[in-house]
Amino acid sequence: MILKKRRVSFEEVPSKLASVVVGCAECHTMNPKKHQDTFEHNGYQVNVVVTPEDCATCHPVEARQYSKNLMYNAVGNLKNNPVYHGLVDSALDVQSFKNMKTILKRPDDQTYADACFYCHGTVVEVKGTETRKTAQGEMSFPILSGWPNQGVGRINPDGSKGSCTACHTRHQFSIEMARKPYTCSECHKGPDVPAYKVYSVSKHGNLQSALAKKWNFNAVPWAVGKDFTGPTCATCHVSLVVSQDGDVVAERTHQMNDRLSWRIFGLIYAHPHPESPDTTMIKNKAGLPLPTELTGEPVAKYLIDAKEQDQRRKTMQKVCLACHSTGWVDGHYARFENTVKTTNAATLTATKILLSAWERGAAKGLAQADSIFNEAIEKKWVEQWLFFANSTRYASAMAGADYGSFANGRWFMSKNIQEMVDWLEFKLKKKE
Amino acid sequence: MILKKRRVSFEEVPSKLASVVVGCAECHTMNPKKHQDTFEHNGYQVNVVVTPEDCATCHPVEARQYSKNLMYNAVGNLKNNPVYHGLVDSALDVQSFKNMKTILKRPDDQTYADACFYCHGTVVEVKGTETRKTAQGEMSFPILSGWPNQGVGRINPDGSKGSCTACHTRHQFSIEMARKPYTCSECHKGPDVPAYKVYSVSKHGNLQSALAKKWNFNAVPWAVGKDFTGPTCATCHVSLVVSQDGDVVAERTHQMNDRLSWRIFGLIYAHPHPESPDTTMIKNKAGLPLPTELTGEPVAKYLIDAKEQDQRRKTMQKVCLACHSTGWVDGHYARFENTVKTTNAATLTATKILLSAWERGAAKGLAQADSIFNEAIEKKWVEQWLFFANSTRYASAMAGADYGSFANGRWFMSKNIQEMVDWLEFKLKKKE
Amino acid sequence: MILKKRRVSFEEVPSKLASVVVGCAECHTMNPKKHQDTFEHNGYQVNVVVTPEDCATCHPVEARQYSKNLMYNAVGNLKNNPVYHGLVDSALDVQSFKNMKTILKRPDDQTYADACFYCHGTVVEVKGTETRKTAQGEMSFPILSGWPNQGVGRINPDGSKGSCTACHTRHQFSIEMARKPYTCSECHKGPDVPAYKVYSVSKHGNLQSALAKKWNFNAVPWAVGKDFTGPTCATCHVSLVVSQDGDVVAERTHQMNDRLSWRIFGLIYAHPHPESPDTTMIKNKAGLPLPTELTGEPVAKYLIDAKEQDQRRKTMQKVCLACHSTGWVDGHYARFENTVKTTNAATLTATKILLSAWERGAAKGLAQADSIFNEAIEKKWVEQWLFFANSTRYASAMAGADYGSFANGRWFMSKNIQEMVDWLEFKLKKKE
Repeated sequence: MILKKRRVSFEEVPSKLASVVVGCAECHTMNPKKHQDTFEHNGYQVNVVVTPEDCATCHPVEARQYSKNLMYNAVGNLKNNPVYHGLVDSALDVQSFKNMKTILKRPDDQTYADACFYCHGTVVEVKGTETRKTAQGEMSFPILSGWPNQGVGRINPDGSKGSCTACHTRHQFSIEMARKPYTCSECHKGPDVPAYKVYSVSKHGNLQSALAKKWNFNAVPWAVGKDFTGPTCATCHVSLVVSQDGDVVAERTHQMNDRLSWRIFGLIYAHPHPESPDTTMIKNKAGLPLPTELTGEPVAKYLIDAKEQDQRRKTMQKVCLACHSTGWVDGHYARFENTVKTTNAATLTATKILLSAWERGAAKGLAQADSIFNEAIEKKWVEQWLFFANSTRYASAMAGADYGSFANGRWFMSKNIQEMVDWLEFKLKKKE
Repeated sequence: MILKKRRVSFEEVPSKLASVVVGCAECHTMNPKKHQDTFEHNGYQVNVVVTPEDCATCHPVEARQYSKNLMYNAVGNLKNNPVYHGLVDSALDVQSFKNMKTILKRPDDQTYADACFYCHGTVVEVKGTETRKTAQGEMSFPILSGWPNQGVGRINPDGSKGSCTACHTRHQFSIEMARKPYTCSECHKGPDVPAYKVYSVSKHGNLQSALAKKWNFNAVPWAVGKDFTGPTCATCHVSLVVSQDGDVVAERTHQMNDRLSWRIFGLIYAHPHPESPDTTMIKNKAGLPLPTELTGEPVAKYLIDAKEQDQRRKTMQKVCLACHSTGWVDGHYARFENTVKTTNAATLTATKILLSAWERGAAKGLAQADSIFNEAIEKKWVEQWLFFANSTRYASAMAGADYGSFANGRWFMSKNIQEMVDWLEFKLKKKE
Repeated sequence: MILKKRRVSFEEVPSKLASVVVGCAECHTMNPKKHQDTFEHNGYQVNVVVTPEDCATCHPVEARQYSKNLMYNAVGNLKNNPVYHGLVDSALDVQSFKNMKTILKRPDDQTYADACFYCHGTVVEVKGTETRKTAQGEMSFPILSGWPNQGVGRINPDGSKGSCTACHTRHQFSIEMARKPYTCSECHKGPDVPAYKVYSVSKHGNLQSALAKKWNFNAVPWAVGKDFTGPTCATCHVSLVVSQDGDVVAERTHQMNDRLSWRIFGLIYAHPHPESPDTTMIKNKAGLPLPTELTGEPVAKYLIDAKEQDQRRKTMQKVCLACHSTGWVDGHYARFENTVKTTNAATLTATKILLSAWERGAAKGLAQADSIFNEAIEKKWVEQWLFFANSTRYASAMAGADYGSFANGRWFMSKNIQEMVDWLEFKLKKKE
């Protein structure tokens, strides 16, 4: 059991840290030669941005696991994938209006950093140096682009990716905070990824809201039924969880998808997780960088296979089974698998309406080499999957009740389809 | 005062339980002959689903009171009322699209269980038996339909209805948890019934969020001003509340509507509560199973009368008066009664537009024997009452500020009416 | 340091209170001659409504500062400004429908009090007297209009304005409660002013949700890094904040805008704060009582100048710098200033579409002397700035991530513009 209590994963104490307590300097003077942002400060070589590569000095296993996440590539996956980048631009653009036409202008860098890349991560580079008056006299500091930022896939000035402080908030690095659901909610609460909202109305979320003040959020390992009596996000997706007897229920992982059989949000259709966290390499039959065809069929070559899906499902179910019976868990999963199917079907219907709008010339799409996200019906189509199908799947995955019904769930999928058809009718009539 | 401290309501200790501590077996072996889900387990007759009838062994008064709730009939009220069931189907259907037409398909059972019936309750029946490998060797277990579920009106395998664990979460059965508002929010937070959302921005909700850590949520009876200084849902609707001197402010009740003069959500118009919790028997003049006419007049025969409304109002006001002055309470109620009227008027306006759409052939409704919930304008009509009028009334009832203005409140009622009229105009033009 | 610990701001103890503990009577018998609502009660002259002028007996500095807030004039600013009042009426009106036309009816007083004026404040006046049976026999009490209410700009029966209990909740007057964000959320959570929602998903909000149970919310002065490790609303906008060494980071202020360079919500465009808290005197070039032209140019004469903006920005930045580096703060502010510009640009685009609709006769606006808020396209225009631009600016100001992207943020600005153009096209077609 002793090893299970460790919060660091190095094999030997790094010699540099053998005889010191970790304070400011230990992290902010780490790997100075790799850090483009290192500057001379009172005789020390200090860097501004502490990176996962710095943290890996003591936490190498976590850093390695984390690099297998989609989040690790959250910048590239958005920036270097033309389809996703098109969605970003269509959300952030500042349109102008002239002669009854709207004109799109590419968003500026500050807007990118303020919106999507706030969570995904910015590119932090040294752009120059500035001198400031300080209490110690004039001093020189690097000027950074994309700063401040703590996005999960941040491109760092030492060439590394990610930001541990996205979840392990500076400078307390409280395990209690990382384990509480509010940390995940920083990025996972909006209509595109309503994980926290759904959790908060689930039985699990209720347990946490009502009883967590008595729980021990600092124990490592984390004993279910003793340290806590209801799961948080971390319990099911990250933490080293043990039974009251100390038997391992789930190993700690920072590859957050290794208990996830389906990728249920972000893309047009739910699909098995991509094999590589770098999704820019994916191409579907139509040549689009998407993990499914526009009509929903998964592009199997780039995705985990059924066996791996099954393995991940079982790893998660071991966590469920720490509190629930087999019958309970089986019933829950059967329902969830069904919801994956039905929500994909509802997305397909919306897609067919959109394809029809493109064919009939009511909107301009792929064949016209136009953005597939800029017109009103296209935006309705996006909401069908990005908001409503997502919400419904989260509700199903976490038993979030009304999020599968009226709160951005099935009701809105159904309504949206009717409104898409009406839009198409009005537009075709107008063309006559 | 001694009796007031009891958390059980039996008159005598049931002989079976006289000399034991209640653990797993006491509840899970209760009434084995009634339980269709009883199975042989290591020499014991165990049942999977503990039901209100089992709980009634020690809590008979609560079970009896609970059976007078609409919630107790939440499955039948939805399933066996053609109008409500039509709304369910129109929300959960997976539509397909062909030749510019949408086709509806009845939702499958998993979808029902995953959505509306997650809160309302499923029908839990034994569908067979399966053998599983366990640490104790091969064992046999019943296979249950509609499982898992803890919906308020669940149909149980012993023939009973309801699920106490909807609010009294297994297996801690924490009175603290049941009294905190997060429990109610599991089912009462969506746009159709935004009780928790409204509460959370009310002065009462603020008191709870800011100060509850110092409150005693376990005291029975619950002394206002001593154990707590602001109400939760339970305070006003359920709990045995006493003054600091021990005088009863409100008796404990599990008939949650016995302090409610109006039924303000779920149906087209706010109306006096139905007399019977089984609403399937109600018929309005038009022959529809609705507690009001389509134009809002209450179907008095099936509803509580003004005297009973007054009685219920007074019971609730006694709770208000534990903290507030008569002038305060009177002013609050006058405003709420006015809001019931004005929101009903706004619903009537939306209904008139819909009736006009049906008459002019822009949409298909009752006269055409078509669903009244499947077209875009019908869905807008539904949102007028199910989302916006509801939110406004909750805001009025609980002083929830912006929920009566911009947050799904009056602003949206007003906007919705304009959009309904525009839709009708566009559609009529199209028909020309 | 001793003075910094004071929670009162009088220079000398008022003689009346020199030898008493403050209980009920001290406040409820204050200034009886000024109080229209004073009534004889068991031989005492008691008033119902305690007002800021009463509170000023011990807290004169706070009352004086508060009178410089827009909130102090929240009733007049809404009631006596024809444009704003038009928005109120268009949100609260109960429309009727006849012959394919909607007819607006002015909202009644109860509706005003239940909606916008619940937060803004009502006019509380004595309307008469009523006799009630009490435990002490028959007693006489004043009947008050607009009661109950605790809105920030309430017009009181002693002629004063405001309500301290809006934030300092009766009768605990807990500083802990006032400092927690739930207090602000009572009025600042809706889509028109989503401050709390944005805060709750920010890093700051996460710190508060996860760690506040260990913070000392009662310390005066409030030491950053010692009493708390993340800011609440009060920290940045109101409280006396000191460093761990006791150095003043920010002086206590009840003029909440004195750290705010921009007014980012409520009006069509973000603009420098008005000089006077009474905005009814403002007139733009077009003669409208608005702080900007309809096309966005600020009406400089009535607004604080760049120097004052800079001063306020610096006062706020001193708070930021208590935890963050200069580079961090500069980067954050650059992004925020950019967002003020881009959101104003998005509002201008929506305004141009609306102006086009008015010009082409698709809707009736200023030139036709019609309400600019009553038609569907006008309501979409309102949402562009009142909901979506606001959300985006709050997200930028507080690093609220998805509220600048998908959660009522830029996505909705972009979609709204497309839908406004479509509406205009459909309407013009219809007119042909």
